[in-house]
Amino acid sequence: MNLQKIQVTQLGRIATPGGDVMHAMKYCDTGFAGFGEAYFSWVNAGAVKAWKRHLRMTMNIIVPLGQVRFVFRSLELQDGEKFREVTVGEGFYSRITVPPGIWFGFQGMGECPSLVLNLASILHDPSEVERLGLSEIKFNWD
Amino acid sequence: MNLQKIQVTQLGRIATPGGDVMHAMKYCDTGFAGFGEAYFSWVNAGAVKAWKRHLRMTMNIIVPLGQVRFVFRSLELQDGEKFREVTVGEGFYSRITVPPGIWFGFQGMGECPSLVLNLASILHDPSEVERLGLSEIKFNWD
Repeated sequence: MNLQKIQVTQLGRIATPGGDVMHAMKYCDTGFAGFGEAYFSWVNAGAVKAWKRHLRMTMNIIVPLGQVRFVFRSLELQDGEKFREVTVGEGFYSRITVPPGIWFGFQGMGECPSLVLNLASILHDPSEVERLGLSEIKFNWD
Repeated sequence: MNLQKIQVTQLGRIATPGGDVMHAMKYCDTGFAGFGEAYFSWVNAGAVKAWKRHLRMTMNIIVPLGQVRFVFRSLELQDGEKFREVTVGEGFYSRITVPPGIWFGFQGMGECPSLVLNLASILHDPSEVERLGLSEIKFNWD
């Protein structure tokens, strides 16, 4: 049931003269697992980045610009649900907390490039990342 | 000489299929002062947000989209330099580390709204923020 451990938390957007303020994460929020590194990823319109799995990192993902579909795959065959999809960004401004151990991919759904912020619990470390080619987990991205 | 305590650090942008990855901050980077909260601010083209001063917060500022001019004001009259300007974002992708105690304002320099990420060392707390009206510190924003 590891897909149920993924938390989706709606975030506030505060109207401010000159440009809105948008919440991302507080250290006391549910899902915060320590600060290792923050980095951005652009996702071009329609582009898919998949598949990846972190063995130690908890990700806290926020999409301040555009819209991105995240697809998570359960490897526990007893799960009724094999994939879980969450589309965040414009229209549903939310944070996704992803514990380690879950295969994921993501796709740019905006007409322009979308922007993803990952507040990662540990530093980037290639030794804790597993990768599979796009076709190695069957999912209909169209 | 408090304006010299502001650190500007160039950040990496890594070409990646489907959309680039852009560094923001690692916990071991110079300037990291703890994680209290992360939030975004949009700045509309030409808009000025000023003036503000934090009494306890260290800000780590990154502009992943557009271009933003930050203006810092020294209140130490012995400083030869009264203002320090740093424009970051497109063309100069960098992090600005701002220790507490410095008056600042910022302006959207992109043709479209620009996006600012603040990795703040403490939670937002109105009691540690001082504000002045735009005209209360004379600076030519044109």
